[in-house]
Amino acid sequence: MTPADDPLIALREALRAFAAERDWQPFHTPKNLAMAMAGECGEVLEHFQWLTAEQSAALPAEVRAEVALELADVLLYLVRLADVLEVDLAAAARRKLALNAERYPVEAARGRAAKYDRL
Amino acid sequence: MTPADDPLIALREALRAFAAERDWQPFHTPKNLAMAMAGECGEVLEHFQWLTAEQSAALPAEVRAEVALELADVLLYLVRLADVLEVDLAAAARRKLALNAERYPVEAARGRAAKYDRL
Amino acid sequence: MTPADDPLIALREALRAFAAERDWQPFHTPKNLAMAMAGECGEVLEHFQWLTAEQSAALPAEVRAEVALELADVLLYLVRLADVLEVDLAAAARRKLALNAERYPVEAARGRAAKYDRL
Amino acid sequence: MTPADDPLIALREALRAFAAERDWQPFHTPKNLAMAMAGECGEVLEHFQWLTAEQSAALPAEVRAEVALELADVLLYLVRLADVLEVDLAAAARRKLALNAERYPVEAARGRAAKYDRL
Repeated sequence: MTPADDPLIALREALRAFAAERDWQPFHTPKNLAMAMAGECGEVLEHFQWLTAEQSAALPAEVRAEVALELADVLLYLVRLADVLEVDLAAAARRKLALNAERYPVEAARGRAAKYDRL
Repeated sequence: MTPADDPLIALREALRAFAAERDWQPFHTPKNLAMAMAGECGEVLEHFQWLTAEQSAALPAEVRAEVALELADVLLYLVRLADVLEVDLAAAARRKLALNAERYPVEAARGRAAKYDRL
Repeated sequence: MTPADDPLIALREALRAFAAERDWQPFHTPKNLAMAMAGECGEVLEHFQWLTAEQSAALPAEVRAEVALELADVLLYLVRLADVLEVDLAAAARRKLALNAERYPVEAARGRAAKYDRL
Repeated sequence: MTPADDPLIALREALRAFAAERDWQPFHTPKNLAMAMAGECGEVLEHFQWLTAEQSAALPAEVRAEVALELADVLLYLVRLADVLEVDLAAAARRKLALNAERYPVEAARGRAAKYDRL
């Protein structure tokens, strides 16, 4: 695959160009981007806050489309934040997944979601 | 490229297997995953809350490594949430980027970050 | 009542003194305090993210005590944030409650919690 | 003072009546209210995300009025959440303040806001 086929790299490059064309780099400090990402997560929460677990898993199509765009917002800010921090997001995710596998061995974790359980 | 080379697809598959092996699917409702993702965003915020813009852009290496793992947590929950919602995250991100390009034409947006400005 | 009997005023004064004694006022910009408050909300979320609605309403005593302290953290940052913004929090809450009463007339709102429903 | 003079108690009672009149109690699980509170914090963040520290401390009057209502939203959900959890919010805040005073002795904390510093 070429880098352009990797969606995280393609997004990173598109967002860099997007910010550069608009002279938005001064606004894109890690601190500001972390806030913007958290704000978008808040919008995701608002979609789900009054729903039951069952309702949250059976969204009407138009709500699902709205939520998809909110998830996209989180991803865009996340990719941009990783970029300005010079963090390789895909590598960090693989590292975290490996840590989680150690932290939650299959046998011990099966069916339990204790307070600090994670993915 | 093969799907396995696409990090978003590779993560999605790894997270599906991770949840299945641990019988964690019942916990992975969209509602719960949205909360978990927002909780991880909160941890990202905590790293930056007392820093100046300049400090946030010049993290000591060990803090940067911690932040990288927090960003990874956000990505893992985001990918898992999109999966259980059957949302194509990369496609949604491309769609949102196109919407943003319409919403913030280069000339009008240059150097301004008004209240509702986004990436 | 004397102002000191009003818990929001008593907290405001205590937090002002707390910050002044430690020379923390430079850190207590509205931006930073908004982040800190959101970070604490993230910690509240983490307590509830894997619980069912029923479990969330029947916390074991020691978890409830932990959650109480997280709620306290949110309140402390909220009171401090309102103070540095010179916002009268109790007055704003009364104003918002009146707006909500107009926005959600009893008859129309009964038993419904649509997407944008609020308290 | 009478309880009705205490704004936290007055709000708690008003919110109880507000929910009861609209049959909204079933929606007001601790889990849902925690999400709603976090969503409101996200809206507070959005007001500040692109501002410098200085700008955040000098909001135009109309923005400050909007932020005041967002802070009110956080307080309303916080008070309601504490109520359904049967947590005495003012007492928890005093307890937390005492813990913070132990955790951050004046001499050691002066002028420092290390990673885990809190109010």
